[in-house]
Amino acid sequence: MPTQAVSGRAPIAILTDFGYRDHYVGVIKGVIASIAPGAPIVDITHGIPPQSIAAGALMLKQSWRYFPRGTIFMAVVDPGVGTKRLPIAVETRSGVLLVGPDNGLLAPAAEDAGLRRAVELRSPRYRLKEVSATFHGRDIFAPAAAWLWRGVRLDALGPAIEGIEPSEIAEPARRGRELRGAIVYVDHFGNLVSNIDRRTFAAFAASFPGKRLWVRLKHSAPIELMNAYGDAARGTPLAIFGSFELLEIAARDTSAAKRFGARQGSAIAVCAGR
Amino acid sequence: MPTQAVSGRAPIAILTDFGYRDHYVGVIKGVIASIAPGAPIVDITHGIPPQSIAAGALMLKQSWRYFPRGTIFMAVVDPGVGTKRLPIAVETRSGVLLVGPDNGLLAPAAEDAGLRRAVELRSPRYRLKEVSATFHGRDIFAPAAAWLWRGVRLDALGPAIEGIEPSEIAEPARRGRELRGAIVYVDHFGNLVSNIDRRTFAAFAASFPGKRLWVRLKHSAPIELMNAYGDAARGTPLAIFGSFELLEIAARDTSAAKRFGARQGSAIAVCAGR
Amino acid sequence: MPTQAVSGRAPIAILTDFGYRDHYVGVIKGVIASIAPGAPIVDITHGIPPQSIAAGALMLKQSWRYFPRGTIFMAVVDPGVGTKRLPIAVETRSGVLLVGPDNGLLAPAAEDAGLRRAVELRSPRYRLKEVSATFHGRDIFAPAAAWLWRGVRLDALGPAIEGIEPSEIAEPARRGRELRGAIVYVDHFGNLVSNIDRRTFAAFAASFPGKRLWVRLKHSAPIELMNAYGDAARGTPLAIFGSFELLEIAARDTSAAKRFGARQGSAIAVCAGR
Repeated sequence: MPTQAVSGRAPIAILTDFGYRDHYVGVIKGVIASIAPGAPIVDITHGIPPQSIAAGALMLKQSWRYFPRGTIFMAVVDPGVGTKRLPIAVETRSGVLLVGPDNGLLAPAAEDAGLRRAVELRSPRYRLKEVSATFHGRDIFAPAAAWLWRGVRLDALGPAIEGIEPSEIAEPARRGRELRGAIVYVDHFGNLVSNIDRRTFAAFAASFPGKRLWVRLKHSAPIELMNAYGDAARGTPLAIFGSFELLEIAARDTSAAKRFGARQGSAIAVCAGR
Repeated sequence: MPTQAVSGRAPIAILTDFGYRDHYVGVIKGVIASIAPGAPIVDITHGIPPQSIAAGALMLKQSWRYFPRGTIFMAVVDPGVGTKRLPIAVETRSGVLLVGPDNGLLAPAAEDAGLRRAVELRSPRYRLKEVSATFHGRDIFAPAAAWLWRGVRLDALGPAIEGIEPSEIAEPARRGRELRGAIVYVDHFGNLVSNIDRRTFAAFAASFPGKRLWVRLKHSAPIELMNAYGDAARGTPLAIFGSFELLEIAARDTSAAKRFGARQGSAIAVCAGR
Repeated sequence: MPTQAVSGRAPIAILTDFGYRDHYVGVIKGVIASIAPGAPIVDITHGIPPQSIAAGALMLKQSWRYFPRGTIFMAVVDPGVGTKRLPIAVETRSGVLLVGPDNGLLAPAAEDAGLRRAVELRSPRYRLKEVSATFHGRDIFAPAAAWLWRGVRLDALGPAIEGIEPSEIAEPARRGRELRGAIVYVDHFGNLVSNIDRRTFAAFAASFPGKRLWVRLKHSAPIELMNAYGDAARGTPLAIFGSFELLEIAARDTSAAKRFGARQGSAIAVCAGR
């Protein structure tokens, strides 16, 4: 059992759609504290929209690189709990570990961090004694994360699997003078986060040298690209590469989601002038 | 003052109805960090519906067994703060301690964990110097939990009391070919959790060997019993023993609460076929 | 790198308006865990109403004194992120440190704790390598808090500044037989917290010896002053010095905000009888 060596250890970081009303997250932490006393636990968020695998996958991908090597990420957005989707753990070349259901949730982060190998969490030794059909976060994932933190090797948790399920997040596409994408997430401030990343944007922009670029949300008037939220006049919308490193629409001091009546799935496009 | 021995110590686990908007929970943690530096603090939830003692009692009962021996649970759902209800601490045969108001909140967990003895938190030495009439979480309960974590004995906190206040959670009852209960909690996913536990259910089922059992919510059509949320077709309701170990109504990929217009107090029954 | 000495160390306490849906707070904790492994992190709240500097300032002021000496408070309510408002750190005579934007957020706590000196967070050595225009919580404030926790001196973070931006919270004012103030915050329970503190109230009361005092919210009927929430009859409103140490209007077992249709900015007055 680790004692003082614990202090400087990388944390177990948890991301779920369990919300903040129920005791589910608390129980998960109890299981971790029972198996790995002293393990630092960090909540990334438990506010993923219920059963939204795409939103969870996006946030896990955006988060992992800010944590220290050795961090164990436990992610649970799991509408298929108790069915045949596999519980898995993933080792990456970047030195972080991922634990969760094999339903696309882990894929973008695993790809980004460099997937090295993955196993199915099948060994009864590293699960709770009784495994329910409804709460693998408690019965399978929390024990796996805690045992990995204790130093148990990935191999011990179960048999290797060939690959992991891919993500369902769509890619943006070019269509003439437009780069078309979609809103994939609406954040707490009402900022509308799209699937258009900097690299895709830059490649598109390079095709139209000297042309003015602007952004259109659904059938909106042109929205200007800016560098800081505060650069826009109060209440004026702007397009910006925000903290997701994805193109987003914001409105200073108000919610862009409300202003445009937009939501997950809404169309967005970068347009090049003639 | 504990130093390296701290690392492997059981946590102080907190459950309240203080919500996530205000600084109340933060202040409680500040008090704990001041008295017991290094004590690991775990949030079970602060999202108990305001002043719902029954919901808090239910979740505390469902949570405690997943935590390590020595865990100190501090639970605060306390509409009577500042009146004559007693602040108490409870020692159990399972090795966990409970701290909170004596209003029924602690009773189901205390009974489940084996109540050994209880004291009133009266000693001024183990309270903050000034005790307000509005925030015993900060002034009485957090100090008590922190001092217990430091190793202060239960007796030192105040005089023994005879028993603790019972819970108000109703029991299910048989009526002919029906086992009638009520929804006692609606979770974050909209799952409707009843007061019908596995044992009561099994005893009822044993009286009707070979008969088909189904569930009815208010005046709903019969709802089938299943083993996994994912076993039902998309949007179809199901009855299941969920992670509360209580019979609940869920609807795959949607909220059962919305679908049925049901809420805390709604009637539920297990029915035996002829 | 600290190891066992960590255990008894004061925490880094975080207060933001980032909410609980997104991964922003998780990323901040990842940055802290990377720079200062083992640093205890306490969430005060992330539920400050979006971009409400006044609410954040109020809660920080109400919270700091319950934490141990050496606590590093990181507060982020930052509508001007990426513009010319300065990122700062503040040292106080009470032994706590404050980190955040210089927009009035830190001022009430800094004044209360005794502002000793302040610096601009300008040294690239103690920021992330790439600093975005949208997320200084991650790129500037979290690294500063983590390095301070590691023992880096305030001076090393950047040049001293003359003073810090004052708060916008208004003061109550006397007008004949009335002490007039405003609601500055509505808490999770719907309690209406005013800007009238005990000292101002006591001075006003001393001017009207032997007179009855009551409270009026907007154009309400007189509301009685009481000592405990539970002293009022069920559903009856009361005025009370609550856990903010500010005069507030509450209604037993219900939300005063709903009952009175009141909100931030609503007028309140203490009235002295003839």
